[in-house]
Amino acid sequence: MQDEIENALAAIRFGRDGLVPAIAQQYDTGEILMLAWMNREAVRASLHEGRACYWSRSRAKLWRKGETSGQVQLLRELRLDCDGDAVLLLVDQQGVACHTGRRSCFFRSWRDGGWTLIAEPEVLPEILYPARTDG
Amino acid sequence: MQDEIENALAAIRFGRDGLVPAIAQQYDTGEILMLAWMNREAVRASLHEGRACYWSRSRAKLWRKGETSGQVQLLRELRLDCDGDAVLLLVDQQGVACHTGRRSCFFRSWRDGGWTLIAEPEVLPEILYPARTDG
Repeated sequence: MQDEIENALAAIRFGRDGLVPAIAQQYDTGEILMLAWMNREAVRASLHEGRACYWSRSRAKLWRKGETSGQVQLLRELRLDCDGDAVLLLVDQQGVACHTGRRSCFFRSWRDGGWTLIAEPEVLPEILYPARTDG
Repeated sequence: MQDEIENALAAIRFGRDGLVPAIAQQYDTGEILMLAWMNREAVRASLHEGRACYWSRSRAKLWRKGETSGQVQLLRELRLDCDGDAVLLLVDQQGVACHTGRRSCFFRSWRDGGWTLIAEPEVLPEILYPARTDG
């Protein structure tokens, strides 16, 4: 499996910062859940563990999605684009994807000259992140 | 309308390179078509013209999607994520999105230890780009 994963990695053109943008899409409904970033380690971990793992740019560390909140993304399929510099993860999102408690991070829509909220939180952030005190 | 667009831009957190990743999704089927990049000028042009415009990193210029191939993306809706550093364009893709002639750029799927082609070209690239001689 390690050799296979190295083959997967060889086709991905990571940027100069070692990252590629990764789109997470709910596999059955087609809903876009979020956009995050992956480095080689994140791709390895995702394929090995069958769950979406990203590189957290703000925390500068591997981020197993849901490790704090429990909102895991089970990986159903990994796709690569024509240029090899973007990946698409078809996932089965457990609970919500967004740290605001919304299902999708893309909850603002440009309508009638303003950004309009198009989704409400389904769960309170303080329930998702009980130990967080930094907001 | 210019003022409104400046308001739209104010909420977007462009990276140090002046760009944000932009996901293009077919508005009715949910299919992910491609991932590209937008700078302020591309967002302005997209909202103003009602069609997807990107910043071409390889050509370092504004790229009105379909300007050569005719495969325009009519903009139905622009969405912004929670952190403001990624956008989602719901579009009505005219023809195919990918320069290879495939509907979507994400036509490679990681299956059984290898990258598997999951879509065939619907149109020949030389039909899309008759004037191209550089491949």
